[in-house]
Amino acid sequence: MILNYDVLVIGGGHAGCEAAAAAANMGAKTCLITMDMNKIAQMSCNPAVGGIAKGQIVREIDAIGGMMAKVTDATAIQFRMLNLSKGPAVWSPRAQCDREKFIWEWRNILDSTENLDIWQDQADTLIVENGTAKGVRTIWGVELRAGSIVITAGTFLNGLLHIGRHKQQGGRIAEPAVPNLTESITAHGIRSARMKTGTPVRIDRRSVHFEYMERQDGEQDFHQFSFMPSKKCLNQLPCWICYTNRATHDMLRSGFADSPLYNGQITSIGPRYCPSIETKLKTFPDKDMHPLFLEPEGENTNEMYLNGFSSSLPAEIQIEALRQIPAFRDVKVYRPGYAIEYDFFDPTQLKHSLESKIINGLFFAGQVNGTTGYEEAGGQGLVAGINAAIHCSGGEPFVMHRDESYIGVLIDDLVTKGVDEPYRMFTSRAEYRILLRQDDADARLTEKAYNIGIAKSDRYNWWTEKKEAIERIEEYCKTKSIKPKDINGALEAIGTSTLREGCKLIDLLARPQITMNILSDIVPELKNELERPANRKEEIKEAAEIRIKYKGYIERERMVAQKMHRLENIRIKGHFNYNEMQQLSTEARQKLQAIDPDTLAQASRIPGVSPSDINVMLVLLGR
Amino acid sequence: MILNYDVLVIGGGHAGCEAAAAAANMGAKTCLITMDMNKIAQMSCNPAVGGIAKGQIVREIDAIGGMMAKVTDATAIQFRMLNLSKGPAVWSPRAQCDREKFIWEWRNILDSTENLDIWQDQADTLIVENGTAKGVRTIWGVELRAGSIVITAGTFLNGLLHIGRHKQQGGRIAEPAVPNLTESITAHGIRSARMKTGTPVRIDRRSVHFEYMERQDGEQDFHQFSFMPSKKCLNQLPCWICYTNRATHDMLRSGFADSPLYNGQITSIGPRYCPSIETKLKTFPDKDMHPLFLEPEGENTNEMYLNGFSSSLPAEIQIEALRQIPAFRDVKVYRPGYAIEYDFFDPTQLKHSLESKIINGLFFAGQVNGTTGYEEAGGQGLVAGINAAIHCSGGEPFVMHRDESYIGVLIDDLVTKGVDEPYRMFTSRAEYRILLRQDDADARLTEKAYNIGIAKSDRYNWWTEKKEAIERIEEYCKTKSIKPKDINGALEAIGTSTLREGCKLIDLLARPQITMNILSDIVPELKNELERPANRKEEIKEAAEIRIKYKGYIERERMVAQKMHRLENIRIKGHFNYNEMQQLSTEARQKLQAIDPDTLAQASRIPGVSPSDINVMLVLLGR
Repeated sequence: MILNYDVLVIGGGHAGCEAAAAAANMGAKTCLITMDMNKIAQMSCNPAVGGIAKGQIVREIDAIGGMMAKVTDATAIQFRMLNLSKGPAVWSPRAQCDREKFIWEWRNILDSTENLDIWQDQADTLIVENGTAKGVRTIWGVELRAGSIVITAGTFLNGLLHIGRHKQQGGRIAEPAVPNLTESITAHGIRSARMKTGTPVRIDRRSVHFEYMERQDGEQDFHQFSFMPSKKCLNQLPCWICYTNRATHDMLRSGFADSPLYNGQITSIGPRYCPSIETKLKTFPDKDMHPLFLEPEGENTNEMYLNGFSSSLPAEIQIEALRQIPAFRDVKVYRPGYAIEYDFFDPTQLKHSLESKIINGLFFAGQVNGTTGYEEAGGQGLVAGINAAIHCSGGEPFVMHRDESYIGVLIDDLVTKGVDEPYRMFTSRAEYRILLRQDDADARLTEKAYNIGIAKSDRYNWWTEKKEAIERIEEYCKTKSIKPKDINGALEAIGTSTLREGCKLIDLLARPQITMNILSDIVPELKNELERPANRKEEIKEAAEIRIKYKGYIERERMVAQKMHRLENIRIKGHFNYNEMQQLSTEARQKLQAIDPDTLAQASRIPGVSPSDINVMLVLLGR
Repeated sequence: MILNYDVLVIGGGHAGCEAAAAAANMGAKTCLITMDMNKIAQMSCNPAVGGIAKGQIVREIDAIGGMMAKVTDATAIQFRMLNLSKGPAVWSPRAQCDREKFIWEWRNILDSTENLDIWQDQADTLIVENGTAKGVRTIWGVELRAGSIVITAGTFLNGLLHIGRHKQQGGRIAEPAVPNLTESITAHGIRSARMKTGTPVRIDRRSVHFEYMERQDGEQDFHQFSFMPSKKCLNQLPCWICYTNRATHDMLRSGFADSPLYNGQITSIGPRYCPSIETKLKTFPDKDMHPLFLEPEGENTNEMYLNGFSSSLPAEIQIEALRQIPAFRDVKVYRPGYAIEYDFFDPTQLKHSLESKIINGLFFAGQVNGTTGYEEAGGQGLVAGINAAIHCSGGEPFVMHRDESYIGVLIDDLVTKGVDEPYRMFTSRAEYRILLRQDDADARLTEKAYNIGIAKSDRYNWWTEKKEAIERIEEYCKTKSIKPKDINGALEAIGTSTLREGCKLIDLLARPQITMNILSDIVPELKNELERPANRKEEIKEAAEIRIKYKGYIERERMVAQKMHRLENIRIKGHFNYNEMQQLSTEARQKLQAIDPDTLAQASRIPGVSPSDINVMLVLLGR
């Protein structure tokens, strides 16, 4: 049987769901192939979305027209804005979510998306004709054909699970692995390699002594993930914190001989920033305690997730080690932690559109590109889905620069630098952090997304309303002066220097101590300005305040970014035969040959390409 | 690692969930081992519970203290009482359920059950010591030990899926099969064999032309599955009916060469009363149409289930055949139907308690006993769970006679007659249908269940209140007379003969035309009697009316049953060496030797044992 589509998406995880929804919303006839419709957008590990830099990605996904933010808001059981004590460049939303409701919220979205079909089956082989991806054949002998194919297979490709010395094939615990698909891709010259990740025990809430733990509640304020009107409707639940101790560590060490990470059973490399507890003991042998976060998995379930205790030690070692901690002295677990090894494809084999350089019409997104994290997967999925649709209908690929979004940073890092371990986003990976804030992802991206048709007019109009309100407030603060007598009392009260002469509101707001709230208490007219539209006043006040307060920093960073844009505009693809350029260092020659960068800016970011190599190219280009 | 329990239940389907909940509610420290906590109580096929005879089983499960009725009420999206135009012996409740909510309702129940743990893992080998089951070892090397072990593995044991000529190992689509466990059981002398079942395509609601189908709505009345206060809270949805046609059949026949049922690929036997569409064409070659029922899978999903179109023909044949039907001319499916072959264990190797005759402490329930249907599985699971708990704590096994419940009929049939095809319950399998009504499962079973501790006092008191109300109404109708002048007008109006002299209400109610409703309109005092307690008046009125109207039939059947009880009381186990009894027919000798019946009544029900064989035994027993 042959089923025909514009876009095929292979895999229904966080990347696949965004890719499928995006392609369909771009107007492409799309089919999502998933092995199990009950596991769509399953949060395989931590039941949480967002966090530092990751929260910004989710805001960007939303600003472009993706779905992860909406789903997160609708299923959040705890919301917090991290880093609020630091500058707004690093404010990061994070939510615990109800794992099961997350799946069904996504299912509902996919179910109500036009142009989108779901086919429950398992992709077995990629069909390639004349260097172009044409479709896949499934294990049930069905052939699906399309103009673009997006691979979002997560950890399923030749997945191998480990607990102690026991190994099982599987894509996730209790789910079959996918054989053959990798081999049918590498047969066409695409390189694959192996990575490893892991997940902790799941704990029965009823067996925990919460009196030995510190409670951490969420926040109840206006913040949410989506820029659009959204609902946070579930009961809010606390997380809990405790610590490992020496007895825990001794017990864990007693199992090291059976640790697949340390007895040679697993050779592939795991995520540096989500290490297993055994890796923490190896890396920090002098530390006597590590923090553990016990997180609820849902409103109604007793299942809890023990963040910080990822492990593939034998089950009894995991449980006995936990029992050394007062809160867990009677612990019951639903299942032990485990490790999984899986195939990924070197992402330097991709263009910025996430299309393969080797097979036309074949896109990759998510963990198959060597990343880790739902947000990183979702961001890539969205871009791959958009570009898969554009690939069918024609048009310029949708690419975001490094000063436009964390997703742009992520993809540029992947395709330019490649990965030698699971890639996780951090704010430190971005050069332009003050430009890539959680509050202004809509300002950065919604219009761009609207222009290519992925953001719809409701989103565009919603953003325009906010934009106009911010500009109105900014203009008001620029023009409105205040006299010393009207404000010096208040200034003194908060311990900042008084005025000698009149001063524009905008200049007062530049002072760290002075907030919109303080100022609007003194200037009723400002308060009025901030109340329009009333249903969005908190969101707009925050955005306007950040824009005004950090204006200097923002403008400086934008100038730097614009300088870099000049290099971005120097297209070099096809200009050079790197192998013959003796002026370049050997390393640069090899790396440039391998990556074949689009622009001089991209060339400059390739590890091993030095500024003098860039100068050589500039001279040869005649500039 | 060793985990110790009283009762282990292997498998989290309809049998396993009831078994685990029952054992834990009986006070046994219980562990449910399931491969996937997201698939607990998954409705693998039809998203419906109940139906003819099956609905009665669910009412019985509830009357005893099982959970299926509660879960069904809470997740019903369509409720109907089947057979209302016939006698109350065959009235049968049936509900469509929301497949996903069904899972989570069960999860919530299990999560809040004391003494019950869940361990997510896969059983690999049974541990038997000295002819007694001691535990299981899992694929992750964990050992769970217990006094009783209940096997409820459904279709997972060496499961093999078929679509056309394609085969895949699997316990259900997208779920791994369980190897080894069967072999570790048969190694101890228990026989296994293979059965087959199948399931139809799942259809995208958006692709259906409903204008070509007949709509079937549910009923909104007081009926529900549970005897306890329950909630039917979901939106009610219609089902839809249409028919196959010649073009459909021609298309299906064109695939017969690739049908695993007819090309030799599948040799095991499937459920006679849920035949595949290809089997219907083979069995009824002259029929030009077969009915199809399109059933919703949930409140929010587009997935629909096509009842009547089970198939393992190649995917393209299934879809092309559907496209010949006007309602499905543009049909999109989520996945094709498939067949599955799996291991079962000859149930004549079991006692009435569902304990193995061969391995002490090992119980079997559900599809592994060769049955089909969620209700049959649930009923067995409940009995196995109760008896597994009793096996640990001591006491007489909990066994129901054939005049007490359909579950009793089911288990007696299984252990006495065995199965040569998947066993499904029908009212015709019961000798005492008028005693086994849906309205009086509580009267039959709740006190008995309360006495062994599985029904709790809330249920017992709830039943007692109903019982007393019924008896009060019955007593009132027995004593209260009505005069001709007060009723003859009404009698004439409904076309039944008038009275010459006063008459007791009970005798009037014996007339088919006269209902409680009619009578209570004439006798206000009866109306008052029927209103107490007001919140249960409909349920109690129905129960009282049936008891009064069918008194004669009920008493006659009870007498027959009591006669049979005399044979039931003649225990023969261990009395005879059948092999040496030349007076018996050869067939009877062999069958009696194999089944080793407990009682003369059971012996009389063994196929091949004739009344004269029974007489021989009676004579030898000296009666």
